[in-house]
Amino acid sequence: MCAAVSDSVPDSRPRRDLRSPVVAVVGATGAVGREMIECLHRRKFPLRSLRLLASGRSAGQVLKYGDQPVVIEALGPDTIDGIDIALFSAGGSVSKQYAPLMAERGTIVVDNSSAFRMHDDVPLVVPEINSQAIAQHRGIIANPNCVAILSITPLWPIHQRNPIRRLILSTYQAASGAGAAAMEELRESTRAYLAGERYEPKVLPHPYAFNVFSHNARVDPTTGYNDEEAKVMQEARKIFGDATMRITATCVRVPVLRAHCVSVNFECEERITPEEVRSIVASAPGVRLVDDAQNNYYPMPNDASGRDELLVGRIRQDVSDPSNRSISMFIAGDQLLKGAALNAVQIAEKLVG
Amino acid sequence: MCAAVSDSVPDSRPRRDLRSPVVAVVGATGAVGREMIECLHRRKFPLRSLRLLASGRSAGQVLKYGDQPVVIEALGPDTIDGIDIALFSAGGSVSKQYAPLMAERGTIVVDNSSAFRMHDDVPLVVPEINSQAIAQHRGIIANPNCVAILSITPLWPIHQRNPIRRLILSTYQAASGAGAAAMEELRESTRAYLAGERYEPKVLPHPYAFNVFSHNARVDPTTGYNDEEAKVMQEARKIFGDATMRITATCVRVPVLRAHCVSVNFECEERITPEEVRSIVASAPGVRLVDDAQNNYYPMPNDASGRDELLVGRIRQDVSDPSNRSISMFIAGDQLLKGAALNAVQIAEKLVG
Repeated sequence: MCAAVSDSVPDSRPRRDLRSPVVAVVGATGAVGREMIECLHRRKFPLRSLRLLASGRSAGQVLKYGDQPVVIEALGPDTIDGIDIALFSAGGSVSKQYAPLMAERGTIVVDNSSAFRMHDDVPLVVPEINSQAIAQHRGIIANPNCVAILSITPLWPIHQRNPIRRLILSTYQAASGAGAAAMEELRESTRAYLAGERYEPKVLPHPYAFNVFSHNARVDPTTGYNDEEAKVMQEARKIFGDATMRITATCVRVPVLRAHCVSVNFECEERITPEEVRSIVASAPGVRLVDDAQNNYYPMPNDASGRDELLVGRIRQDVSDPSNRSISMFIAGDQLLKGAALNAVQIAEKLVG
Repeated sequence: MCAAVSDSVPDSRPRRDLRSPVVAVVGATGAVGREMIECLHRRKFPLRSLRLLASGRSAGQVLKYGDQPVVIEALGPDTIDGIDIALFSAGGSVSKQYAPLMAERGTIVVDNSSAFRMHDDVPLVVPEINSQAIAQHRGIIANPNCVAILSITPLWPIHQRNPIRRLILSTYQAASGAGAAAMEELRESTRAYLAGERYEPKVLPHPYAFNVFSHNARVDPTTGYNDEEAKVMQEARKIFGDATMRITATCVRVPVLRAHCVSVNFECEERITPEEVRSIVASAPGVRLVDDAQNNYYPMPNDASGRDELLVGRIRQDVSDPSNRSISMFIAGDQLLKGAALNAVQIAEKLVG
């Protein structure tokens, strides 16, 4: 752990005026980076200026912030000064190198990688759940794993009334979580399949066209869980502030472009009914109830794509728990928005608000 | 319930010699019907002759049994005589009308629809699990729901050693379960999506290209479960002969052509380890262990398509159960083969064997 964010060192970072900050997006050309720029603009984030940082390869390219062209700068020791808030989405190794460096110089980093999420002195934040944790930051705030955000945001208001004791998740994850190149691979390999042509996967380890596969993260040979599942399980507990919550996850990629789904079974401390859950979900922040049995209309990635809200439905008693303490439900949410860019921008909004 | 299969009426159906039977495929032009013909041929079913029955629309068309052309006959009161074994896959209403009629005339019907599955005097059979139930038939034997077959075939040898008390399933179901037209709709809507063209769904209720949706079966407004889920839950209990097994299922369609996947969490009566499960699965009939953590190689619909065996992997302790009685795993299986046609042909093989 770097000195800049360690508890043992007094917090001597320079203080900035955050009312009208200079904001940087680090990893501006990636799938999440582009959505961060879009979210900042669409939500009228009160920034003084926007800087876009990326690898040397992209330097000099121009992206639009609304109508305004912004030239991409190469991320390097010379381009990281004068930034008040930096939204990072450039992968774990870039975050590990630059986030502590920038935090030391007084920048508040909102980091979308998993590099710092489980560090004790780094808040891991879903604004609808634990925005109060933001105040404890020491220069870095972590943006959680997309499946963790999507799964637990609708569960939080339930957990507050009737603590969730066990959570069983099976995911239907889109290409976007593996980046823009994976989205392109899904499109291109599907096009090839339909044309009867061969396609050699380059980004993902398995053929993606009309296929489903276990998440491409490394698998721990001892536990059998992959790193994506481990993140979801650990991060959910940290965000809920409940180290005892029992969780298991099965993370699976499906041939969908940018919205994830999660099949959720959860068990509460006390009895709970679908009606209670429906009424809590209907008024939960950031969540939209989509639960129309008559028309068989439920959360779908198609509807969740490009939407800020998470869609929640198929709420029913889990009949495999005769104590009536368990509920099954289904969630869909845009992986690039609430699963990544939007949540990071919401954290930044709390910093300036 | 029809008299021909009722317990109250003595079984006066004519007896046939089944050593070299006349076999009919009813619904020969459907996705499952075609696979039935293919399975009969590939497995060298000892039939005397094959008859193909379908709706009047298809009568006169010719399908191949190996190299041999077979002319399709219109299903009707005049074409149902002289058949020893009939494999039905023509939908519930055709089964309800013709299966009892044919059973009365001495045909043994193996019915792929859900029409008779839960009838007390109709055996519901997965040959790897309960082939002994076949002997109790009174003219009709039911072929189970595809998800039920895929989920419980690998679980049966586990259940025999350490009874499964709770089963939580989330499915990733292919288009084929909704028939050949749904498969074509998936291809065509995806082609349109990639070309930037509009596509109006005709077969399924929701857009299918790069989308996921809750199973299209009717939803019970009281329980919130759809009919597919209800079938899986009821049929699994009947086939296992265990009315007390607690099951829940979430059935979901994914944009895959012909193989289903199931994410399974099951809880046993006693402690169980992933190693035990792996060793049981490795020698289970009809099942292939695909559980390679190092290469992140697990069951995929791509690999399961066109294969008789079910693929089972991702076997790991379900860490949300601290009593170590629960296991998570992932299954892939060809919906048209073991999920339908192959299982029906296996039942027919038991009849002649």
